[in-house]
Amino acid sequence: MEYGSKVKVSYESNEFYGTLVESSDKKIILLKLESGYNIGLPKNKVKISTISKPNYVIKKSIEKKINSSLPNITIISTGGTIASEVDYKTGAVTPVTKTSKLLEKLPEIKNIANINTIEILSKFSEDLSVEDWTNISNAVYKELSKDNIRGVVVTHGTDTLHYSSAALSFALQNLGKPVVFVGGQRSSDRGSFDGGLNLICGLHVAKSDIAEVLTVMHGSSDDNFCLVNRGNKVKKMHTTRRDSFRPINTVPIAKVYKDGKIEIHSEYNLRHSNKPKLMQKFDEKVALIKYYPGMDLKLFDFLNKNNYKGIIIEGTGLGHIHSKFLNKISELIKSGIFVGMTSQANYGSVNPYVYSSGRNLFNHGVTYLEDMLPETAYVKLSWVIANFDSAEIKQKMKQNISREYSEASHPNDFLY
Amino acid sequence: MEYGSKVKVSYESNEFYGTLVESSDKKIILLKLESGYNIGLPKNKVKISTISKPNYVIKKSIEKKINSSLPNITIISTGGTIASEVDYKTGAVTPVTKTSKLLEKLPEIKNIANINTIEILSKFSEDLSVEDWTNISNAVYKELSKDNIRGVVVTHGTDTLHYSSAALSFALQNLGKPVVFVGGQRSSDRGSFDGGLNLICGLHVAKSDIAEVLTVMHGSSDDNFCLVNRGNKVKKMHTTRRDSFRPINTVPIAKVYKDGKIEIHSEYNLRHSNKPKLMQKFDEKVALIKYYPGMDLKLFDFLNKNNYKGIIIEGTGLGHIHSKFLNKISELIKSGIFVGMTSQANYGSVNPYVYSSGRNLFNHGVTYLEDMLPETAYVKLSWVIANFDSAEIKQKMKQNISREYSEASHPNDFLY
Repeated sequence: MEYGSKVKVSYESNEFYGTLVESSDKKIILLKLESGYNIGLPKNKVKISTISKPNYVIKKSIEKKINSSLPNITIISTGGTIASEVDYKTGAVTPVTKTSKLLEKLPEIKNIANINTIEILSKFSEDLSVEDWTNISNAVYKELSKDNIRGVVVTHGTDTLHYSSAALSFALQNLGKPVVFVGGQRSSDRGSFDGGLNLICGLHVAKSDIAEVLTVMHGSSDDNFCLVNRGNKVKKMHTTRRDSFRPINTVPIAKVYKDGKIEIHSEYNLRHSNKPKLMQKFDEKVALIKYYPGMDLKLFDFLNKNNYKGIIIEGTGLGHIHSKFLNKISELIKSGIFVGMTSQANYGSVNPYVYSSGRNLFNHGVTYLEDMLPETAYVKLSWVIANFDSAEIKQKMKQNISREYSEASHPNDFLY
Repeated sequence: MEYGSKVKVSYESNEFYGTLVESSDKKIILLKLESGYNIGLPKNKVKISTISKPNYVIKKSIEKKINSSLPNITIISTGGTIASEVDYKTGAVTPVTKTSKLLEKLPEIKNIANINTIEILSKFSEDLSVEDWTNISNAVYKELSKDNIRGVVVTHGTDTLHYSSAALSFALQNLGKPVVFVGGQRSSDRGSFDGGLNLICGLHVAKSDIAEVLTVMHGSSDDNFCLVNRGNKVKKMHTTRRDSFRPINTVPIAKVYKDGKIEIHSEYNLRHSNKPKLMQKFDEKVALIKYYPGMDLKLFDFLNKNNYKGIIIEGTGLGHIHSKFLNKISELIKSGIFVGMTSQANYGSVNPYVYSSGRNLFNHGVTYLEDMLPETAYVKLSWVIANFDSAEIKQKMKQNISREYSEASHPNDFLY
């Protein structure tokens, strides 16, 4: 049976109609339903009949023409939903599609820039890990170092896009060109495909003078504009909405429209021609721990026994945890483990001075990380431990290295 | 030196002006600054001079008059910022104040209801734990069982208020009267005190026919109205803002105004005269684990070795974690541990059918908990394991017991 065929599948007492797509699990029949969702069914328990043969044609690659009046931009592909269609064999489910095929669907791109695409990974972003931050940093650095490259776009799965963009905001110091992360919440075979606008807007931003690590994703549910957010001040705030990437404790740097218009909303680092400094190492012996009532004290013993070097806690409210943890955490800090405090409340700063619980933690050596996001604090700690002496860790964590702390005097007052 | 005095404190090269308040740590001088925040300084390293003596007078308790035309409401106090002033000795920092003193500041309350106050705990909410959910449930149940009590208000610290309100939404089955959680983000000696409006609005709601476990907290930064949210569909979404308690994946049940006007915005369970059923047990061998790139596989071994019975994962996006965890999680499930999936994206549902990673987890026995909040899922699992047979756990977790799942067909479409 040919992938791409319309089929009817009977399973137990149900009948499913959809398009047959390739499954990574050989025991599973994978069906793309008309809703756009996929369903997997056990191959040995279903009956399949073909309704119609595949009606797609795989296009040949468009011949590459260089337009010398346009800047050069490199798209580095890591996988994710944005690169999950066109090759119908895999449907929307396994990220194997070449970025170049996505570009064929977006002919307007050839008027924005000369595009060079490099595929370094082909993973959903939940399968990316600390070592991938290093891989992506190396690849981006190599492109940025070329004089004829104006900016870099990284296509990435949305699940951990904000972890990776935070990582690159530290790994690429003295950045002089834009590094733009874009992803898609809906695959390109769905009517609500968002990756196209995100990619077009991302390319416009990669040409701009905003020389930071950024995310460019839908700003509303409509296809009207994208938000340009600082890569270490943004979170995925919804499981499915196209406008899921929201600025936290800040306003967006800019709005960008399909035609290339960029409306600036806040300060940013300007483009310059000096080379960036690559600091691509990350340490894996760092943990991000969300506190909850009933959490087990022994969890901290586990981290200690396993030679962890640093812990970021997502405390409650202004940065609190149960007072019974105080002695244990004090022990860890005395043994040389860095403990940083952030909040699970998503918005606002932590502050150790308001309540006795915070003051006690602070007095025992817990470092309060103001309005830095927990995810960013985790990534930064992994980077600081890998790149600096242990005596410098606390100071580096408090230093505003890549605008990860808000500079406004009252970051709590940002709309949320 | 008398607590409540205005003082000048010199410490190293800095001078601080404020009100001297009692510190729980004898080595620390505690100063309430004019900003409303407290600062603690080492007693042996400061110089203090008095500017003025305390100007407060501790009022005597107002004589209790019963107004037979008003309903009776019980306020159960557990501590927190809302009950942290009037007794100036403790400033805003240790929750020892009697609720009755807060009521003296709010004379309009005597026209809303006859109030009986019971103090069962005097803790900041970060120090509450699973056994306190049982204590609060018992106390609330006892009051609800009295025919002459129209409703119950629970005053509670805001840090874990949403965990406790979720717990009571399960512990009190067949609820026929309102159970209203209120807290304060700012202490009552600050101009921005919010606990007064929250308490007044909470009392109005306790008189209403909304027979659910609810939170009643500021709906905007102004003092104009409060939002009535379902206790298991709400999160503290900001560290300091007064309108931090936001409905997640739903709309508020109602808006309530200071004068008692209640505007209904969504469905709720109606008041009835049948007795509630108390199911106050919670199991402590449950964990809430936020996934992050780089998370250690051994963490799950730790939970297994320590005899955990259930785990709620806050996965990425639609409910994903790195595929390297699949075998380990499969082992845990086979050994009888319940594993439920929620999302760290805050808003939206998890869904195992969209991507191969979710489908693999689902096929290996992970239970996808749709749009239930991670905190609610954690509390519910602790309750389900304590109150039902192990064979029933999965079914009970999927059953919509206390409206913890949204009933709307597209919970993703709620505004956020």
